[in-house]
Amino acid sequence: MAANPRRNRKLLLTCGGCIFIGALFAISLYSNAASSGGGGGRNSLSEAAAGSHAESDSRNLGDAHRAAPLIFVGGMPRSGTTLMRAMLDAHPLIRCGEETRVIPRILQMRNHWARSQKETLRLQEAGLSSPVIDAAISAFVYEIVVRHGDPAPRLCNKDPFTIKSAEYLLTLFPNSKFVFMIRDPRATVHSIISRKVTITGFDLTNFKQCLEKWNAAVKTMNAQCDALGPKKCLKVHYEQLVLHPHQQLQKTLAFLDIPWHDSVMHHEKLINKPGGVSLSKVERSSDQVIKPVNLGALTKWVGHVPKEVEAELGEIAPMMKVFGYDPSDPNPKYGEPDPDVAKAS
Amino acid sequence: MAANPRRNRKLLLTCGGCIFIGALFAISLYSNAASSGGGGGRNSLSEAAAGSHAESDSRNLGDAHRAAPLIFVGGMPRSGTTLMRAMLDAHPLIRCGEETRVIPRILQMRNHWARSQKETLRLQEAGLSSPVIDAAISAFVYEIVVRHGDPAPRLCNKDPFTIKSAEYLLTLFPNSKFVFMIRDPRATVHSIISRKVTITGFDLTNFKQCLEKWNAAVKTMNAQCDALGPKKCLKVHYEQLVLHPHQQLQKTLAFLDIPWHDSVMHHEKLINKPGGVSLSKVERSSDQVIKPVNLGALTKWVGHVPKEVEAELGEIAPMMKVFGYDPSDPNPKYGEPDPDVAKAS
Repeated sequence: MAANPRRNRKLLLTCGGCIFIGALFAISLYSNAASSGGGGGRNSLSEAAAGSHAESDSRNLGDAHRAAPLIFVGGMPRSGTTLMRAMLDAHPLIRCGEETRVIPRILQMRNHWARSQKETLRLQEAGLSSPVIDAAISAFVYEIVVRHGDPAPRLCNKDPFTIKSAEYLLTLFPNSKFVFMIRDPRATVHSIISRKVTITGFDLTNFKQCLEKWNAAVKTMNAQCDALGPKKCLKVHYEQLVLHPHQQLQKTLAFLDIPWHDSVMHHEKLINKPGGVSLSKVERSSDQVIKPVNLGALTKWVGHVPKEVEAELGEIAPMMKVFGYDPSDPNPKYGEPDPDVAKAS
Repeated sequence: MAANPRRNRKLLLTCGGCIFIGALFAISLYSNAASSGGGGGRNSLSEAAAGSHAESDSRNLGDAHRAAPLIFVGGMPRSGTTLMRAMLDAHPLIRCGEETRVIPRILQMRNHWARSQKETLRLQEAGLSSPVIDAAISAFVYEIVVRHGDPAPRLCNKDPFTIKSAEYLLTLFPNSKFVFMIRDPRATVHSIISRKVTITGFDLTNFKQCLEKWNAAVKTMNAQCDALGPKKCLKVHYEQLVLHPHQQLQKTLAFLDIPWHDSVMHHEKLINKPGGVSLSKVERSSDQVIKPVNLGALTKWVGHVPKEVEAELGEIAPMMKVFGYDPSDPNPKYGEPDPDVAKAS
């Protein structure tokens, strides 16, 4: 695509009576080339600003977005997504920041179009093929991720449900990676209900219905993660992250190709410090990440699962077994905490 | 690929036709080069691609979008918005293209957030202040406008309802301009009903209700247009465009700072020709732009306004008077057509 404008410029230059323009063009191109130096022939945005060669620049612009090695942290709400992003945020090379809320919505909007054959056809007829839509959505997502927090070498996004669109996000950002947080659904649902966390479709008066909703959601998320494969999507169990933070974070950082840094072990000391973990009032009030890793949260739910639900757990939430949680054990032992975790807790 | 002949034709027309256009080009490029050069050196996107300096680049990137001198054509559906954009599309320097459908939706989504104080607060708390949201939305709009059709020196968008967000769009694109199409609502509503045009909120079985909806919509549009002022928003009456296309298009092109070109008088000859007027099957089937300017459409509605509605027109649709249409005249004369229009029709 980038070759065409050049040919047209040549055409312009050969036009009689346009020598003056050609000279100005050349000057403009020269200065653009100079300002974009080292970019391997990328045109400067000043041309796009002029609107006269918007096409080539914008296409390059999309490529630039595409190359960003973004990190997406997702999973069901109340499954440790905030803990994971806070730990990553504590790393000097990473910035996640608060939930953006708008990224899942634009993804949902696009899903809505993509699911309707009639709409897809109408959009295609109007020149809005998938690559056009995708370029606009990736530009939107990228701008939000970049601008809603401080700069950092590795940018990360935590909106729990984005992992439902992991395959699509990977087509937008081929260098991105995904961290999928998994937690015993009895704990997740107990937390959702006791903290009155509003999630579309969840009936907070009905433990069983919430488990069913959990099952449906994580089934989709898990299928997306599996489709991406272990090089692109890492599954992390909340319980293991709490019990063995050093080991789990080492694994996570290795997966992300980011060197170890001890600060990830002390995220709570960096809350709302410069370069640390930015946490809004809204998130602070509902989350426990202001504390060091919290062993108490692991079994808080025990004794709060309705008896009739407990008896049918395996049928209500078959994804439990897929994730290695035993539905028949009402008081599971997730493991022994590391000594420093036990001491701090 | 249709892109090459199209572009070549546009460029040849530009060069071969008149040096004046070229001079404008040159001035535009020169001033843009100067303005971007003075900005302390725009960074190359290749850095953003590396992810190592994503922040600064993205901020400049937004600036580049912002400078685009976009043209937005809007108004109520069935008010000549397609005719206007087809005429502009026929100009070798302009590309509008089909309705994108997604631009009004993302604007609507943003309106929804902006109207909710609670949501605005939550977004702000998460670092998503207005400038962050705006950068993402302008990036989205820009990508869609640029990519859904062929390149052209001046890009234009016609999604009828975008003009309801004219003030907001002007903050996103300070160099943009707006063309607001206005038409006798009796004709507009008759056309909507007889052609079964689906518009949210319009009851196609109820002429009066459609007039009320028309009134509410154009009231908002007109207020937006007035707020922008005549240098940024031009009102064009469909009837006058049909009767006096040369005069009205001259006014429109002067408003847009685009030199006159005779091809705008023959848009119908350029439908789906390279460099001409791209028209999808969906739009072709419902529109009359495949014909030359159509005098018949002016009074087709006469005799189709329900009597009881006719008696109350001034109260049902007070915007009629604001736009200079006489509600008490059941058979208005909009003017004498230009001789060549009368001959062609």
